[in-house]
Amino acid sequence: MARIVMKFGGTSVADIKLIRNVARHVKRETDAGHEVAVVVSAMAGTTNQLIAWTQESAPLNDLREYDAVIASGEQVTAGLLALALQAEGVNARSWMGWQIPIMTDDAHGSARITGIDNTGLIKALKQGQVAVIAGFQGIASSNRIATLGRGGSDTSAVAIAAAVKANRCDIYTDVDGVYTTDPRIEPKARRLSKVAFEEMLEMASLGAKVLQVRSVELAMMHKISTFVRSSFDTPELPEILKNAPGTLICNEEEIVEQHIVTGIAFAKDEAQVSLRRLVDKPGISAAIFSALAEENINVDMIVQNVSEHGAKTDLTFTVPSSDLNKAVKILERNREDMTFESLQAEGGLSKVSIIGIGMRNHAGVAAVAFKALAEKGINIRAITTSEIKISILIDSAYTELAVRTLHSVYFLDKI
Amino acid sequence: MARIVMKFGGTSVADIKLIRNVARHVKRETDAGHEVAVVVSAMAGTTNQLIAWTQESAPLNDLREYDAVIASGEQVTAGLLALALQAEGVNARSWMGWQIPIMTDDAHGSARITGIDNTGLIKALKQGQVAVIAGFQGIASSNRIATLGRGGSDTSAVAIAAAVKANRCDIYTDVDGVYTTDPRIEPKARRLSKVAFEEMLEMASLGAKVLQVRSVELAMMHKISTFVRSSFDTPELPEILKNAPGTLICNEEEIVEQHIVTGIAFAKDEAQVSLRRLVDKPGISAAIFSALAEENINVDMIVQNVSEHGAKTDLTFTVPSSDLNKAVKILERNREDMTFESLQAEGGLSKVSIIGIGMRNHAGVAAVAFKALAEKGINIRAITTSEIKISILIDSAYTELAVRTLHSVYFLDKI
Repeated sequence: MARIVMKFGGTSVADIKLIRNVARHVKRETDAGHEVAVVVSAMAGTTNQLIAWTQESAPLNDLREYDAVIASGEQVTAGLLALALQAEGVNARSWMGWQIPIMTDDAHGSARITGIDNTGLIKALKQGQVAVIAGFQGIASSNRIATLGRGGSDTSAVAIAAAVKANRCDIYTDVDGVYTTDPRIEPKARRLSKVAFEEMLEMASLGAKVLQVRSVELAMMHKISTFVRSSFDTPELPEILKNAPGTLICNEEEIVEQHIVTGIAFAKDEAQVSLRRLVDKPGISAAIFSALAEENINVDMIVQNVSEHGAKTDLTFTVPSSDLNKAVKILERNREDMTFESLQAEGGLSKVSIIGIGMRNHAGVAAVAFKALAEKGINIRAITTSEIKISILIDSAYTELAVRTLHSVYFLDKI
Repeated sequence: MARIVMKFGGTSVADIKLIRNVARHVKRETDAGHEVAVVVSAMAGTTNQLIAWTQESAPLNDLREYDAVIASGEQVTAGLLALALQAEGVNARSWMGWQIPIMTDDAHGSARITGIDNTGLIKALKQGQVAVIAGFQGIASSNRIATLGRGGSDTSAVAIAAAVKANRCDIYTDVDGVYTTDPRIEPKARRLSKVAFEEMLEMASLGAKVLQVRSVELAMMHKISTFVRSSFDTPELPEILKNAPGTLICNEEEIVEQHIVTGIAFAKDEAQVSLRRLVDKPGISAAIFSALAEENINVDMIVQNVSEHGAKTDLTFTVPSSDLNKAVKILERNREDMTFESLQAEGGLSKVSIIGIGMRNHAGVAAVAFKALAEKGINIRAITTSEIKISILIDSAYTELAVRTLHSVYFLDKI
């Protein structure tokens, strides 16, 4: 007998028929003798409708009111799933964030969980009652509803799993696992049966939209084995881990057969800014990136070379295309303080990343990539690397070609 | 400066444009220097959609889950109105039932308010912040959301008015007041400028659907002057009580110019059951009506005559037409215990009622009615009376004729 947390996203609970399907997934686990907590998102479409209403009501939103409005979506799903479970003969009740309570900080709209009182939940689970929990929400110290931001239900699920010391957290979504790359671009992409937390973290932050980044961080921190699978499978499969297709996100030690590279991620709509002939003295970089951060511009890749100009250097970084104009304006305004002589900006770029824990112990991974891309005539504009990731910046037009080339050169279609 | 509670029903907040209109109504009052609490219903249609979903999820509803689901509708409106007020430059925040808290008993689905903690609300009002309160809901002792049943937002509003010691409770709805009768049946019906609590209570329970019965009881008990007006009027009218059309529901002493009869109410779809030759001994009536009550059959008019059969008597009562078959079955099953010799049942009836506090001091009100109806050839099947009401049971086909005849004979078109 295990204690498991099951999480179902918006497309998995989009209508009552699907909610009943979810109830059967849950019943399979309770029938097997497990203690189950379920975390649900709002029915697909609901959150967008509610957000549109808040925007129509007031152009400048008070995020506390925004939260009160949109948290209602998960409340509805939690109640409906509890009812559907009862109709299946399963003892169940709904829990809102404030009832548990799930405490958060006061950053309404994108709050962070600061603590979870597990008393009520554990009592209910031990009594054999399924806890159906409204995801994406908690309660701030002001006694007001706070939401965790987009994708926050994943974070709710992992945090609940940690709080009730669950043996496993199952994330049911509209895909059946994590793939070596996006199958819409590379039909030969294969599902990974296991992926390490660190790898998943890189994939999530690089745009592989299966799991929210914070939920993966949390899972890694608390060592919660997280299984990603499809909610559209037949619910009655008896032994989920042995038979059901999906991807287990786990500690690297649990992955016996390690590959050097596990996946190719990519992000389109990147833009590049190059500042030429900066004075190479302490504080200049800080000045630049602080100014951008203050305006909420998310800087991604940063490359700084030792420059040919002696005491002067060049700095290149990327921002989302949609922020490019804003970024350029901020930089031009501060040109003198920032000491650069010229600025080059260009949109229409993509970042393609090669990810794999095995890279740590294998030299030459980067060389293979550069050679393969060169053979296809793909120009590399910038490169950044970490222990388990190599990211390259290229023209967007070559994204698909680059992804397929790298997928093939690392034999990912053979995994 | 006054402290007022304003309540807006579902049709008054049916979309964002209307919610903004409501914000302007509220702003008019805050601009006048008043402290304002607003109670809102769910956007029209929302509650029905949510109820349909709960029924689709589980045929036998756990009312605690039902409450969690449908209370979300008012939560959304409260947040949206707070935003719309902020957009108008009005300081406002939303309050859910559990945040205030509004305490209720555990009768989920039709809970009663047992207490309201006014601390937070009064503090906010004194600081000039509009309190936008989700109507229709509170929190049961189990820490779970409880709803007050259909029309419960009226009750919320009056209870809040009592709790914060408001000078006035304004009920904004889709009609502009209480009429002498239904204007769809009698175009000459006139709006009453004032009506006594007791009269309104009879009108509400008799099917004049302007205000929920419990809210009127509560207003009477706490002496909360309640003003019914239309939310579709221009919000910018400066002096609501002097200029705005509407009906003030108040203590009878405040009504200077009293009429003998103030209104004609009616209820269609009534059915009559007559039990013949009952043994006239203590306990028989109790046995009959307990059996019906146990099956949730709502008995309305009850008439018992001293019978010509000596120790035996006849008993007539009415039930909703939809419950007639069920009622007859229960009675037939218990015929021996209930001691009646025969049973007559008939549907397709209407109850028409003449209401007026002035009746107390005027004889002959009933005689006028009977004479007028007789002249039109309308047969009266049964009569019940209270201090301020005369109800008669007639064939449904004559409803409109009876209403118009009575409306005219008491000069209600001249009020």
